[in-house]
Amino acid sequence: MNLQGNQYIGFSPSGAGKQAFQAINPVNGEKLVPFFKEATDEEIALAGEKASNAFQQYRLTSGAEKAHFLTLIAEHIEKLGDDLLQRCHLETGLPLARITGERGRTVGQLKLFAALLKEGSWVNASIDLAQSDRQPLPKPDIRSMQTALGPVAVFGASNFPLAFSVAGGDTVSALAAGCPVIVKAHPAHPGTCEMIGMAIINAAREANMPDGVFSMVHGGPAVGMTLVNLSDIKAIGFTGSHAAGMAIFNAAMKRVEPIPVYAEMGSVNPVFVFSEALEHHADRLADGFVQAVNLGVGQFCTNPGVLIIEEGENCSPFMEKIKAIFNQTPGGSMLTEGIKNQFDKAIEAAKAEADIEVVTLGQVATTFTGVTPTLLTVKAEAVLHSNFQIEEIFGPSSIIIVAKDVSQMEALAHFFSGHLTASLFGLNAGMSAHVRLVNVLTQKVGRLIIDGFPTGVEVCHSMVHGGPFPSTTFAGSTSVGTSAIYRFTRPLCFQGFPHNLLPDELKDDNPLGIMRKIDGKYGA
Amino acid sequence: MNLQGNQYIGFSPSGAGKQAFQAINPVNGEKLVPFFKEATDEEIALAGEKASNAFQQYRLTSGAEKAHFLTLIAEHIEKLGDDLLQRCHLETGLPLARITGERGRTVGQLKLFAALLKEGSWVNASIDLAQSDRQPLPKPDIRSMQTALGPVAVFGASNFPLAFSVAGGDTVSALAAGCPVIVKAHPAHPGTCEMIGMAIINAAREANMPDGVFSMVHGGPAVGMTLVNLSDIKAIGFTGSHAAGMAIFNAAMKRVEPIPVYAEMGSVNPVFVFSEALEHHADRLADGFVQAVNLGVGQFCTNPGVLIIEEGENCSPFMEKIKAIFNQTPGGSMLTEGIKNQFDKAIEAAKAEADIEVVTLGQVATTFTGVTPTLLTVKAEAVLHSNFQIEEIFGPSSIIIVAKDVSQMEALAHFFSGHLTASLFGLNAGMSAHVRLVNVLTQKVGRLIIDGFPTGVEVCHSMVHGGPFPSTTFAGSTSVGTSAIYRFTRPLCFQGFPHNLLPDELKDDNPLGIMRKIDGKYGA
Repeated sequence: MNLQGNQYIGFSPSGAGKQAFQAINPVNGEKLVPFFKEATDEEIALAGEKASNAFQQYRLTSGAEKAHFLTLIAEHIEKLGDDLLQRCHLETGLPLARITGERGRTVGQLKLFAALLKEGSWVNASIDLAQSDRQPLPKPDIRSMQTALGPVAVFGASNFPLAFSVAGGDTVSALAAGCPVIVKAHPAHPGTCEMIGMAIINAAREANMPDGVFSMVHGGPAVGMTLVNLSDIKAIGFTGSHAAGMAIFNAAMKRVEPIPVYAEMGSVNPVFVFSEALEHHADRLADGFVQAVNLGVGQFCTNPGVLIIEEGENCSPFMEKIKAIFNQTPGGSMLTEGIKNQFDKAIEAAKAEADIEVVTLGQVATTFTGVTPTLLTVKAEAVLHSNFQIEEIFGPSSIIIVAKDVSQMEALAHFFSGHLTASLFGLNAGMSAHVRLVNVLTQKVGRLIIDGFPTGVEVCHSMVHGGPFPSTTFAGSTSVGTSAIYRFTRPLCFQGFPHNLLPDELKDDNPLGIMRKIDGKYGA
Repeated sequence: MNLQGNQYIGFSPSGAGKQAFQAINPVNGEKLVPFFKEATDEEIALAGEKASNAFQQYRLTSGAEKAHFLTLIAEHIEKLGDDLLQRCHLETGLPLARITGERGRTVGQLKLFAALLKEGSWVNASIDLAQSDRQPLPKPDIRSMQTALGPVAVFGASNFPLAFSVAGGDTVSALAAGCPVIVKAHPAHPGTCEMIGMAIINAAREANMPDGVFSMVHGGPAVGMTLVNLSDIKAIGFTGSHAAGMAIFNAAMKRVEPIPVYAEMGSVNPVFVFSEALEHHADRLADGFVQAVNLGVGQFCTNPGVLIIEEGENCSPFMEKIKAIFNQTPGGSMLTEGIKNQFDKAIEAAKAEADIEVVTLGQVATTFTGVTPTLLTVKAEAVLHSNFQIEEIFGPSSIIIVAKDVSQMEALAHFFSGHLTASLFGLNAGMSAHVRLVNVLTQKVGRLIIDGFPTGVEVCHSMVHGGPFPSTTFAGSTSVGTSAIYRFTRPLCFQGFPHNLLPDELKDDNPLGIMRKIDGKYGA
């Protein structure tokens, strides 16, 4: 595929702006062809206008038609074949096996949402039947269901160039909801974005979707802010850093019409290990922990950034095991020079803290964005009493805290702010002894894991990839799994409607055969 | 009941602040005993602390126990008997019949939520079963359900001293969700608030709920802002004016930890009448319209603020009918002197607009807060071409627009911003000719009504009392009906949990017998 470096304003490639940037191979620092043009204000405004127009048709598109569209996107992504994998590899430095796996996840996610739409019950149809003889006043016929919110702006993440990018979870859930999408392509993998963008447009044309159902613009923070302030945009999906997420959130709240911002901004994902786990599963845990820290060169929102170990006779041997594995761990290339510099700076800052010590280093990576995996430790007392804040270090690093007992582990848990996940390792039989810690942690996270590391976010119906602030800007949502669709819908109520004007989902004879509530009771 | 004028900080009456204000009888302007003390910062902070502590127990309270609590609140409100009705009447000027009806609605609402909790399926339990043999990686056991968000601050409305106040929809849905509540009592009916607050506390004690599950503070905007900025508070429910709602919203967004604000800020609720309705139902419509405008002296969020009539031979006779009924309409007392002054000012401002004319007036009310019902008209062209904005006039007033045809009605509909409701009157048989207008309006409102006026918000499962900004700050929610509970919950995911640590809602054998999703499919 011959990359053009243009925007997609609806179905039309557009290159009115200046040639602004190139992708960079993080392994060797080489600039990759072509130049990508930055979107102009006019192009962004036109994308907004097209999205608003497309919404008039797309919001009324049936579940079956939207499912067909999503399925075609999956097929067109698969058709990109090795070209996609190669370009993505060049732009991100991620191994081909990882990119192949991520493509599978991206395609699987599209198909899961297609299945959700075909089944159709997700709209939460609810019918309260009229009671004409009710006293003192007759009860009218009232029906409601979820409906699409409007055009959505999606800010892709650097660390999942497929699964959280142009056709990632935010885009798919917005399209599934019936919302046109304008993606701000991530400048770290613009060629990958262009290829996926083209796949979506090909699918949209083939499925007879309206021009404007999808657009994609390139550019930096200024382009992002223009998009956030576009009056056509009714919600925002974002995955990335705390600073960028909060800048978007604050801008969106200051709009004439404030709009919801679903920003997933990462977290420290504390992992608690009780002494009984150390006694019985030390090898498995040490291996699993070091792997989880270094997976994807540590560039996961669910990277375990803190390991809290219960003190005791098995503690030191466990630390030694971890050290031995960790310092054999190869370093790797970070996704961008900026991310590498931030990692190095964060590690230097951590080392400069009086309370933090280096446990061990992994092996040096000498590539352009190469970093050295770094394992740190801090005393529990320092965290609890010196107002020391543990912040996410995005990359192959974690910080170990040895807690003197379970009640100090609880104190540490109280100290934490909102996270995407927390994990507990004990023995299943004895886990009920830790119910107090479980109860503290359920208030801090979106997902609590027993006997598992947080990396590996299953795309399924029950997944919650979200959590209290500051891990996200809206704890009531998830950005992974089928419930992600509800970020881009709102309830709409039809009162006293003649039958032929009701959507199929709310008609008496239930032509779609979906699960509904009738007078509050479930039943098809 | 002997009113004390104190705060309720948890179960404890507290009167550390200065005696700040008295309720005023809006009919005669007399000050009512006693003085009410304004909450101090310390009292508010203590209420927050108690709420956070109570949350540790209350969030784990079973549905059956919470249902018992809500039912007891209903009983204790009923036990207040005539004392409540009389005090409420003195403070609000609302007729006793209306207050009695509103008490019924408030009690009914408590019982509806109690039934929802007893049934239990509202938590949206979802189970994805483990697949240990899945390739390339085993699938873990993942389960999720809605869980309580944390302590909620509720700002009661002036216009529903029972149904949207201390034990109103926001409080009940938050308590049902498992969230402790701190109410900012409305200074227009503080005695009513104290009586209801006492009923809630008596119910909480009787049901063995934790101290701090409910608190109530008195005061003005400064007390409100202290409450908004309390770190214990995790969400806000508000019903009232646009200015007050936005002040709270903006403050909450600037917190170190931003929190969701569910502000229902009223709307104009456009009503569209097609010529075929004028031909066949002119009498009923004219009667219904004038009644809806003047119900509760026009002090409803769902007051029909704009009537758009299709031009034609039946238009003038219809206008004459409306005029004849309207100018027989008695004026009434507004809830407060402030609301009366705002109404009078808004009417004067409207009259000063070159494009607006007075159609007719109702009868003058000479009470302390008495106002004169006022029917206005504006030319469609003025709205469409002079950038004339129709804003809510809170009180017994509406503005009539004669549209020259259905396509001009559509143009007007496009022009409107977000509203709680819109209504359409035609003939059911011919309504499908208006599907384009229906499609425009579904994008503007939370509830679309055919052949009915918007006043009278049914408390049921399918109700949506919400809508796009500026009618609310979050279109994805409702403040009336059982779905209001989801404003105060977030999804929580349990991965790899041993069975005994799972909440009952997620256990394999489904001990509560609730509707759940297993691998995405509905089934108990």
